[in-house]
Amino acid sequence: MKIGVEHLDDLSLGSVFLATGGGGDPYVAQLVAKQVLSTVGPADMVDANDLPDDAHVVSIGGVGAPTVSLELLPSVQESLRTLDAFEKHTGRKVDAVVSFEIGGGNSLIPIIAAAQKGIPVIDGDGMGRALPEAQMMTYAIDGVKPTPAVAVDYQGGVMTFETSTTEVYERQVRAMAMTMGGMITTAEHPMTGAEVKKAIIPGTVSFSIEVGRVLRENRGNAELAYGPLKELFDGSIYGEFRQIYTGKVTDKATRIIGGYDIGEATIEAFDSKQKPLHIDIKNEYLVARQGDQLLASVPDLVVIVDYETATPINAERLRYGQRVTVFAVGCPQYYRSKKALDVVAPKYFGFDFDYIPLEELPNPLG
Amino acid sequence: MKIGVEHLDDLSLGSVFLATGGGGDPYVAQLVAKQVLSTVGPADMVDANDLPDDAHVVSIGGVGAPTVSLELLPSVQESLRTLDAFEKHTGRKVDAVVSFEIGGGNSLIPIIAAAQKGIPVIDGDGMGRALPEAQMMTYAIDGVKPTPAVAVDYQGGVMTFETSTTEVYERQVRAMAMTMGGMITTAEHPMTGAEVKKAIIPGTVSFSIEVGRVLRENRGNAELAYGPLKELFDGSIYGEFRQIYTGKVTDKATRIIGGYDIGEATIEAFDSKQKPLHIDIKNEYLVARQGDQLLASVPDLVVIVDYETATPINAERLRYGQRVTVFAVGCPQYYRSKKALDVVAPKYFGFDFDYIPLEELPNPLG
Repeated sequence: MKIGVEHLDDLSLGSVFLATGGGGDPYVAQLVAKQVLSTVGPADMVDANDLPDDAHVVSIGGVGAPTVSLELLPSVQESLRTLDAFEKHTGRKVDAVVSFEIGGGNSLIPIIAAAQKGIPVIDGDGMGRALPEAQMMTYAIDGVKPTPAVAVDYQGGVMTFETSTTEVYERQVRAMAMTMGGMITTAEHPMTGAEVKKAIIPGTVSFSIEVGRVLRENRGNAELAYGPLKELFDGSIYGEFRQIYTGKVTDKATRIIGGYDIGEATIEAFDSKQKPLHIDIKNEYLVARQGDQLLASVPDLVVIVDYETATPINAERLRYGQRVTVFAVGCPQYYRSKKALDVVAPKYFGFDFDYIPLEELPNPLG
Repeated sequence: MKIGVEHLDDLSLGSVFLATGGGGDPYVAQLVAKQVLSTVGPADMVDANDLPDDAHVVSIGGVGAPTVSLELLPSVQESLRTLDAFEKHTGRKVDAVVSFEIGGGNSLIPIIAAAQKGIPVIDGDGMGRALPEAQMMTYAIDGVKPTPAVAVDYQGGVMTFETSTTEVYERQVRAMAMTMGGMITTAEHPMTGAEVKKAIIPGTVSFSIEVGRVLRENRGNAELAYGPLKELFDGSIYGEFRQIYTGKVTDKATRIIGGYDIGEATIEAFDSKQKPLHIDIKNEYLVARQGDQLLASVPDLVVIVDYETATPINAERLRYGQRVTVFAVGCPQYYRSKKALDVVAPKYFGFDFDYIPLEELPNPLG
């Protein structure tokens, strides 16, 4: 399929939904993508299974604190510059690019790079959602080495990395992002076509476009959108789809700590008859709790949308006074394997409880 | 001249003297140098003026908090690995290496690399002392670009950098040093032979060996060493040589802040008749003050030696209870130019006073 200007609104909307609060606000990346695709034409999007096993694929996207994406704006050149720097560093042409994560700007950066470079972007990503650290990507979990990797900063500076593990690489690029204004663009975790087929969460770019379409067609309010969304997710690689809370944001605080947006939010029901909902944030919405009762946790998806318009709200846009609805979605099956849960279960984020799959948790709304 | 195992004790001693408290403890680097030079033979040390103008020179050394050099030990491979990584990254053979700074391990790393690689090391450095930041090097002050540069971490990981200014490069390598245990080895500020001749503080390696020899031959106590040291410095590229204080360390505190050792020390005279001497530290001993009276400040050298043995004491080795003598030495003329003072005067370090050359300041001891 061709990804053209006409897909960008739905893709952005849908990928913010799947990003569970993280991934950065896609607004400026979307403007950049519109400009690029209307100039060079649409990007060619392919199924991972259509790649030759020996294809040379690299994942590309932004690394940093999503908050910063509201201020440190991406440029039209950054994605292509990063891909060019990667090819120069490795001395080898890249055959296709792929996303780290479905989420805000990071869904769009590979499309921009692919269109500018005239190579395909793969339909899928390395998380099926957004998650805050590189070692949480399916590519890393599957044993793909993080380097050779390159990072480009807002000044056009280029860094390259050769390191042993994704954990160490993650610390390095995070430090560089913090040093260079809070956000850098990286090309990393190079893979063969065979590796991509094994590790990718497939079809998430085209699925984001579908999610965006359903949200756009049901902008009445979040209650109206629930049915069509549930129907869409029920036929997908994702698990159970639930509406778990509706209310007003009564508290929200995050700080940039160690290059991440870290904090929490409280949502209180309009009628005040239910206990407030508590959301823990590390770039993404990680955990939803009502009192002591867990309602959903990472790696399952916690999604907050505007109650009136069903527009998904990024964590850095969540504010006191907003009226919101909270959805929870079972993650793709890949993230329920032991090797995935080793790096994405709540305990890995410092919470003191084990992961319980969404469908085994109570739903206060039914 | 050939630098062999027989020069290492004097070189280490002398370079710690010139390092004014910084540069890191050379003990382990010296063990590494001894092992390397006794295996591969002495390193060839050349005068910068004997290099062809089109020679390809790179400066090499450790970047980080000197405190860490007591725990994160350098390996026999690190210097050569860094040089090899630099050659691989730039695709060009290096003709000679040179020091960032005279100081502890950073005097020895280029010698180790040169001996292992079979290329000359240049007699001289980019500071004539130790200073905490890359933009304070004569190479940077002279307009030499910091990159292409490479950094090697203790795990053998390799990073490369392409950036516009030494200030930005300094932030990047400092962040990488902090991320990778506190210390990395870098090859950076590549120069032509013509550029080296213009920017280098010449002869400081062989001068360090002389300083070390004088200290070794006058180990009686610091008072005895003063005369021979003064005679040696009077015939050198350095300015006035002064003994400014003798007493006991009654307070010393540093913390690692932003990848630097930052803090202060207080020294009180044995007879308590003089006001205490206050020393400000940022990796190096930067400022010596007695009450409101400035006695010496960066870029002039403040040197602390053990009172009983005249052994220079690194900042990370300075401790409560040590009996010490403090010397001050006028810096090489290069650092008194406006373009040098722009980045090494006290105000650049956050002090609220202008630089006053040592010879215009009073000497409480005469």
